Amino acid sequence: MSTIQDVARHAAVSVSTVSNVLNGRTDRMRQETLARVEAAITALQFRPNTLARQLKTGQTPLLGLLVPSIANPMYGYIAREVETFAQEQYGYRVLIGNTYRDQDKEAAFFEDLLAHGVRRVIVISSLADERHLERAVQRGMVVVSYDRRATPGELSDVDHVTPDNFEAAGLATRYLIAHGHTRLAFATVAGMTMSRSDKIKGFLAAAGDAGLREHARVLDGGPLNEYGDAVLSEVGRALAQQMVNDPEPPTGIVAVNDLMALGLMAGLREAGLRVPEDMSIVGMDGLFLSAISNPALTTVQLPVTEMARAMVERAMSRQSGQESNASELVFTPTHLIERESVAPPPGRVRTRAHATGMKPLKAKK
Amino acid sequence: MSTIQDVARHAAVSVSTVSNVLNGRTDRMRQETLARVEAAITALQFRPNTLARQLKTGQTPLLGLLVPSIANPMYGYIAREVETFAQEQYGYRVLIGNTYRDQDKEAAFFEDLLAHGVRRVIVISSLADERHLERAVQRGMVVVSYDRRATPGELSDVDHVTPDNFEAAGLATRYLIAHGHTRLAFATVAGMTMSRSDKIKGFLAAAGDAGLREHARVLDGGPLNEYGDAVLSEVGRALAQQMVNDPEPPTGIVAVNDLMALGLMAGLREAGLRVPEDMSIVGMDGLFLSAISNPALTTVQLPVTEMARAMVERAMSRQSGQESNASELVFTPTHLIERESVAPPPGRVRTRAHATGMKPLKAKK
Repeated sequence: MSTIQDVARHAAVSVSTVSNVLNGRTDRMRQETLARVEAAITALQFRPNTLARQLKTGQTPLLGLLVPSIANPMYGYIAREVETFAQEQYGYRVLIGNTYRDQDKEAAFFEDLLAHGVRRVIVISSLADERHLERAVQRGMVVVSYDRRATPGELSDVDHVTPDNFEAAGLATRYLIAHGHTRLAFATVAGMTMSRSDKIKGFLAAAGDAGLREHARVLDGGPLNEYGDAVLSEVGRALAQQMVNDPEPPTGIVAVNDLMALGLMAGLREAGLRVPEDMSIVGMDGLFLSAISNPALTTVQLPVTEMARAMVERAMSRQSGQESNASELVFTPTHLIERESVAPPPGRVRTRAHATGMKPLKAKK
Repeated sequence: MSTIQDVARHAAVSVSTVSNVLNGRTDRMRQETLARVEAAITALQFRPNTLARQLKTGQTPLLGLLVPSIANPMYGYIAREVETFAQEQYGYRVLIGNTYRDQDKEAAFFEDLLAHGVRRVIVISSLADERHLERAVQRGMVVVSYDRRATPGELSDVDHVTPDNFEAAGLATRYLIAHGHTRLAFATVAGMTMSRSDKIKGFLAAAGDAGLREHARVLDGGPLNEYGDAVLSEVGRALAQQMVNDPEPPTGIVAVNDLMALGLMAGLREAGLRVPEDMSIVGMDGLFLSAISNPALTTVQLPVTEMARAMVERAMSRQSGQESNASELVFTPTHLIERESVAPPPGRVRTRAHATGMKPLKAKK
């Protein structure tokens, strides 16, 4: 087994320089020095003893996790899985930052993390343009991007880990179709990310495969402040109003995620419509909240634990610095949790009288 | 207005030493040097131009925020408010860490943050023993503790910002009593923090003031993994079973927080009990989720925005290092949001037949 001294000799630097690299103190280090040390670490397959390093420096290395907004419980859920695995498997602690899917904020955060000695970052964003992530890699970071695929045909320095969002939405849509729904809608928020776009494509493709493309609509409830927010109820209400005012409203709805499904259920309830008697809803995520809603939400369970592990593994196993041929790991969700929010469509054409605030009759289950 | 040069002269150090202090690069600085620079900053009322500093260093200063678990949406809510204010008012970015209310984890996190140049930390924990926080202050950090008061009679170097948890629970309890409830329960989780303990005291005191102390019970649903978790439904179910098996079940329930109230409502629904017809529930927090639950949750709204601002102000306005006579800011919640989860108690003694899984009739609103 090689030692820190071997690495220093191989890279022709001092032991303390290697130590600085191992502990992320590289903000004032020359790029060439850093690259040389890391090449030596790779060449010698040097694995620092985390515990010994902690005892020596009294400090745990840090893994950065950038999320759109930690106010969204789904990111809290992912963050917990990431942290558990990073800590148990690698002895790393996780530092979380909010970026609101803003490219400039993300880029600035990378600068800060780099300056503070954090070298490995998982970023949840799903923005179409990832040039700022590529630049971070070129500046010496290891970056793993969650919730979108790599751009086809382009070499990337960024690893991608993502659920198959196209397939997740397809699974939800086919479940509604199997329950007899023909008037379908996809409920989403304003602002197009790669993951939302893939879900919409998956929804439309599944509807098309069943010959229902003509009746399949995408409804947008407006902006959501990266959700997890008080506005969730407003967005749910706005979507419910669109459905209620529709002369031929959808009966089967795929929500872009579980929170949106919960907000929509609240909006529909306010508008006097019942789930699942009047409208059926399927979510996506498998958030713990979906299990305690009323009615409990039928949803596509994403393999969050497996994806979190894969992200941490990618973030930890790579040496930092320029390195192309990054990997792309796509997890196909196969598990739909059947709960209470889906039923066959109502057997009659709903009239608009339903939407005027009258309490509808309670349907038999 | 004084300049960085004035500070350096006053402290008899170099400008770059002052710059290091301003940018949190103090891990290898002697304690006396740091204290001298900070005394000079205070004496000269030096306020660095954040923007200029950022342009120069290319780095935003960081504020640490330690939470029990970011998987709990309430901490996500607080985190967003803290971040918004820290960024808009002080140009600071926020880094969040999970500590699971574990004293050792908190202490270790302080070490890491200190080593990475983060000097100002808000910690949400409510542990009775805060010696590890005091030690962090002695090592040069500014620490603000959320969700508990200072220990009476003890000088502390830690600032405290907290809702009046005693009063919040009292407000919820009195609301139930005003609606005619006499058999009261407080629903909580295993593990005693200062905030939970204060809420229980407030609940019992309010019940006692109304002559209802004898019928007021504290029910514990078991451990909650710092909640926000799949186990929430299990805890709700366990609590519901305790109530259902009670020969004289409570009719008015104060939940330790909104998430617990939501879990409990799910458990009661599973057990065949209706909210609010059979049992009334009041939450505490005012989490966005309480507005979209079914029934929508009546809850005590904590002044989260105001408290977050106060925490950031305390964290930013103090110079780091030994300084006693820390402040204690207690925010009294005065606002109870009336929604749908409270009604007068049922006019009859409930029989156990209700609890056998029969679907109850839907009551008129």
